[in-house]
Amino acid sequence: MERAVINLQDKLNRFQELWAPRVVAELNDYQFKLVKIDGEFIWHYHKDTDEAFLVVEGQMAIEFRDGTATLGPGDLFVVPKGMEHKTSAPVPCSVLIIEPRGVPNTGEAGGERTAANDVWI
Amino acid sequence: MERAVINLQDKLNRFQELWAPRVVAELNDYQFKLVKIDGEFIWHYHKDTDEAFLVVEGQMAIEFRDGTATLGPGDLFVVPKGMEHKTSAPVPCSVLIIEPRGVPNTGEAGGERTAANDVWI
Repeated sequence: MERAVINLQDKLNRFQELWAPRVVAELNDYQFKLVKIDGEFIWHYHKDTDEAFLVVEGQMAIEFRDGTATLGPGDLFVVPKGMEHKTSAPVPCSVLIIEPRGVPNTGEAGGERTAANDVWI
Repeated sequence: MERAVINLQDKLNRFQELWAPRVVAELNDYQFKLVKIDGEFIWHYHKDTDEAFLVVEGQMAIEFRDGTATLGPGDLFVVPKGMEHKTSAPVPCSVLIIEPRGVPNTGEAGGERTAANDVWI
């Protein structure tokens, strides 16, 4: 019996909404989330967890108070727990985020950019 | 200050050894490991954790007692905790594995195919 695998590009083709993470898989109590981004997000931090970003396509920046990480396809970056950051994308960008289940996209900041959590695709 | 990102292809260019995972990043108590595979591994399982595979290049299969998952680039599969599996690759294949720190590649099976753990690149 052939088991279904999760193709990231196939999942990306199924939604267009920006800044709205879609869960594609779970690993113990962690989730793999795809998110499409374009433009700027808000400053925030996650008080209880690191957060991993792996760019699938496009370009993004993760700004910190003392520097910036610039990511293209195949680039991985882990934002340490508690570190303030602001993501942005100069062009449309698709990103795989890995973090514990239940982590909100706006961390401790909250506000209108907070996306629904645990939305699967 | 520009912060260093982890480029998966760059890391893959730095080693050739097969079936010997290299840690490239940590996320809380989880690790991102790159591994190059070719040919067949052994049957094993991980009693305490799921294990995620994301193919970077090449093709691989994950065989189970009741089926097979076939993965190419951009394909993700999470092997459930406790499920016996055997990985193989019909062509050279590079894979990103995500699992908790300290998980041996041969799980509960042990034996001569057990690789050194926590080797960073």
